Amino acid sequence: MEYHKINQEDLKALSSYIADPARLITNPTTHWDHDQFKTVRAMPDLVIQPVTNEEVQKVVKYASDHNIPIVPRGNSTGLMGVNLTVEGGISLDMIKMNKLLEYDPTSLTMTVQAGMRLIDIEKFLANKPFSYMPAPAMHWASIGGNVDTDAGGLKAVRYGVTGEHIRQLKVVLTDGNLYKFGAKAVKSSSGYSLKDLIIGSEGTLGVVTEVTMWLYPTPRKSINALIPFPTLNDPIKSVPAILASGVVPTTVEFMGRKIIDLWEKYYNEKFLVDTGDGFILLRFDTFTDGELQAELKQAVATTKQFKSAPPIVLDANSEEAKTIWKCREDLLLAIQKSTPKMDEVDICVPINHIPDVLDRVDELEKEIGMRIPNFDHAGDGNLHIYLCSDNMSDEEYKEKSDKVITELYKTAKALDGNMSGEHGIGYARKDWFEWYYGEDYTNLLRKIKKVFDPNSVLNPDKIFPLQDNSKLTNLTYVNELVMS
Amino acid sequence: MEYHKINQEDLKALSSYIADPARLITNPTTHWDHDQFKTVRAMPDLVIQPVTNEEVQKVVKYASDHNIPIVPRGNSTGLMGVNLTVEGGISLDMIKMNKLLEYDPTSLTMTVQAGMRLIDIEKFLANKPFSYMPAPAMHWASIGGNVDTDAGGLKAVRYGVTGEHIRQLKVVLTDGNLYKFGAKAVKSSSGYSLKDLIIGSEGTLGVVTEVTMWLYPTPRKSINALIPFPTLNDPIKSVPAILASGVVPTTVEFMGRKIIDLWEKYYNEKFLVDTGDGFILLRFDTFTDGELQAELKQAVATTKQFKSAPPIVLDANSEEAKTIWKCREDLLLAIQKSTPKMDEVDICVPINHIPDVLDRVDELEKEIGMRIPNFDHAGDGNLHIYLCSDNMSDEEYKEKSDKVITELYKTAKALDGNMSGEHGIGYARKDWFEWYYGEDYTNLLRKIKKVFDPNSVLNPDKIFPLQDNSKLTNLTYVNELVMS
Repeated sequence: MEYHKINQEDLKALSSYIADPARLITNPTTHWDHDQFKTVRAMPDLVIQPVTNEEVQKVVKYASDHNIPIVPRGNSTGLMGVNLTVEGGISLDMIKMNKLLEYDPTSLTMTVQAGMRLIDIEKFLANKPFSYMPAPAMHWASIGGNVDTDAGGLKAVRYGVTGEHIRQLKVVLTDGNLYKFGAKAVKSSSGYSLKDLIIGSEGTLGVVTEVTMWLYPTPRKSINALIPFPTLNDPIKSVPAILASGVVPTTVEFMGRKIIDLWEKYYNEKFLVDTGDGFILLRFDTFTDGELQAELKQAVATTKQFKSAPPIVLDANSEEAKTIWKCREDLLLAIQKSTPKMDEVDICVPINHIPDVLDRVDELEKEIGMRIPNFDHAGDGNLHIYLCSDNMSDEEYKEKSDKVITELYKTAKALDGNMSGEHGIGYARKDWFEWYYGEDYTNLLRKIKKVFDPNSVLNPDKIFPLQDNSKLTNLTYVNELVMS
Repeated sequence: MEYHKINQEDLKALSSYIADPARLITNPTTHWDHDQFKTVRAMPDLVIQPVTNEEVQKVVKYASDHNIPIVPRGNSTGLMGVNLTVEGGISLDMIKMNKLLEYDPTSLTMTVQAGMRLIDIEKFLANKPFSYMPAPAMHWASIGGNVDTDAGGLKAVRYGVTGEHIRQLKVVLTDGNLYKFGAKAVKSSSGYSLKDLIIGSEGTLGVVTEVTMWLYPTPRKSINALIPFPTLNDPIKSVPAILASGVVPTTVEFMGRKIIDLWEKYYNEKFLVDTGDGFILLRFDTFTDGELQAELKQAVATTKQFKSAPPIVLDANSEEAKTIWKCREDLLLAIQKSTPKMDEVDICVPINHIPDVLDRVDELEKEIGMRIPNFDHAGDGNLHIYLCSDNMSDEEYKEKSDKVITELYKTAKALDGNMSGEHGIGYARKDWFEWYYGEDYTNLLRKIKKVFDPNSVLNPDKIFPLQDNSKLTNLTYVNELVMS
């Protein structure tokens, strides 16, 4: 796409929309050029930090009318380059739109501006009888960013992902209008669900400015249990059995010893146990202690056939439980500290097929010659698989990681999985999308994109290439697959 | 729209796609001309009963290529005329596509053809450790029809609606291709969720042929409780308090004495209690008896401040519990037996605003002079409000019911509710849609419709008028509102 380059006239017009000149940054620093992985950098020409819907409306409309790329940005905790201004243009930094708009326990809802961070939502609700249940590990992510990738997190087994906890969105479309998608009401059978179309659309269809969340009664009782297994593979095999045993855990996470070693090394901390090669981390939330104990007992009994060791049971508010959760939430950063560059494959497969993926990861480590640590939301089949550059050259890393990524996507596709469970496709994976989901399918998405964003200014080059380029010119390895 | 009328040449072509001539019905009977309400009748020119995806693909493509209306049809339990061939053409009767394709407990999924009825799904799962949780009262509805209206039902408070239990759909689009939307995997952050766009789209975007459902461990313990209150309004006021008390009921239904009287009269049955003017029906599902009792105790204690009488607690498998549920599921048909004609308003409002709607219903009964019985999914704010013709002339009924419908939509809109919680917009309410949701919003839906159905052959005249007709020429009463 040919885009218009921001000039003095544009700056003048755009400044007139933003009440405070300090929120229009014409010489952006590297703060705005990357995401969590920092592997691709792209500097915006201009950063705008709106504080009202009206400011967003005017800026988005101007960008669309004048063919200027505009990329909404939360707190940049993403991994797939969703927030990168790869075509230049405007970085629409939402982080100052961080106000609580309404806390309404009688309708079990809470409405906030899209830039509010999860950690601030959690703090606000800490002394209230309600919780916002989705629990992405990156607490400093913005809720708008969570909506844009339909973030999952650590409690999806029982409570589902972000999208299932969103009642209503206010969204600015390229016509400059503010739309209300969804309602404070719980249910709708009233035409196409545009709310669900926006959720997970990575800012390519509109800019989410307000989010009305569903509040859930905070569980009275919670318990965590860490179950060690002598081998790496047994715990993961126990997961479908646990889920079929009649209990409904909140959390079922899988971690291997190797990744815990990394955490101990790079965080200089000590894990709770030093035996066991694989671990399941379980959490239950209930109304009574009796129910907690009964569910836990059933789950533990189920794991016995997979050679589990006795569980370490932890009161949810104990220091030990906090250590376990901190470890789990630090894992990504621990891996990141262990290698100069890294990339991730975030496939989600049917829960019974996680072992197949892990077997393939083992093979690829040897075949390709790359360290590929991983940890997994085992209860929902979502794997986080990391590709470490270690001491490779950039060229070698690019070639090898392209191969690993493609092979893992082949595996996921064969198992009826998705390319991404919760981190999105973004810029990093857009060239694989059409190959994975097919040309007809991708063309449907292209047409929907066109309905919302006729001038293709909203977050360009994300999810799928706008042009029908089934040739995938950048990826030799994928090309070979497509050709063969 | 001007459509092509099916001729001998079309019949010849269409018969060539359908293996058994008995499944192509050229002289349809009244079996195919109505839905549950039977208030609007529209005879299809042709009924086709496909049994394979390929048959659906060929017929849909032919219809699209030749500008012939085609209307998917389940088991006609709908109330809003979603299945009516109002422009003639083909009624695509899916009821013979009723096969179980896969039961896969290791991935917690089950895949069936779209014409399979809920009751057959329930029967198949009866002796299995898993359940399909959504519980629409019409057990003989097809799962495809449930998907098309995102059916809610009696367990939505805890488990959510149909859409939240659907992993994957196979959908035939007008290009004749079979698409897979979603996956057997639990989570996706992989581009726009076309699965969620199809759910609730009433067959206007594509024809759902296969449905992969999420299976949930069947709760070990269940209990029902009927709580009587001396007045009609107190029980409904207790609902937000129950939901805020920390318990998570599966079911929170509201019924008034008047509607129970109707059921007793027309079903010649006896309700469990003969005192009390309003009732809450609660259900809890848990792993242990202790949890059941504790949650129930908490809920009952919460209702005391609203003057509740002692609850009638029923084992979920008792005869009494079956009677209560039969009563609840019969209510619609009981009202239908009490009046020559009826219509329904299915608005869903934030749960704390149900009393406001019921107050407005009371006023309207007096103001307009119409019997307006109702019962409500109180736990999710979805009201089922019935407009009875009784001894009115057709003209009087039309005029009065248009007024009541419009006034209740005004009420719902002001309370941030939706036009329909679970029954859809269909043919019956399409003329109100644009007035309720606005022109810009409706135009977005029109453009999405165009992406999927460029020739507008799929279920025409449903949800919203295809043409931008904000004038709403058929509805004098709404016109006055729009003008004023």
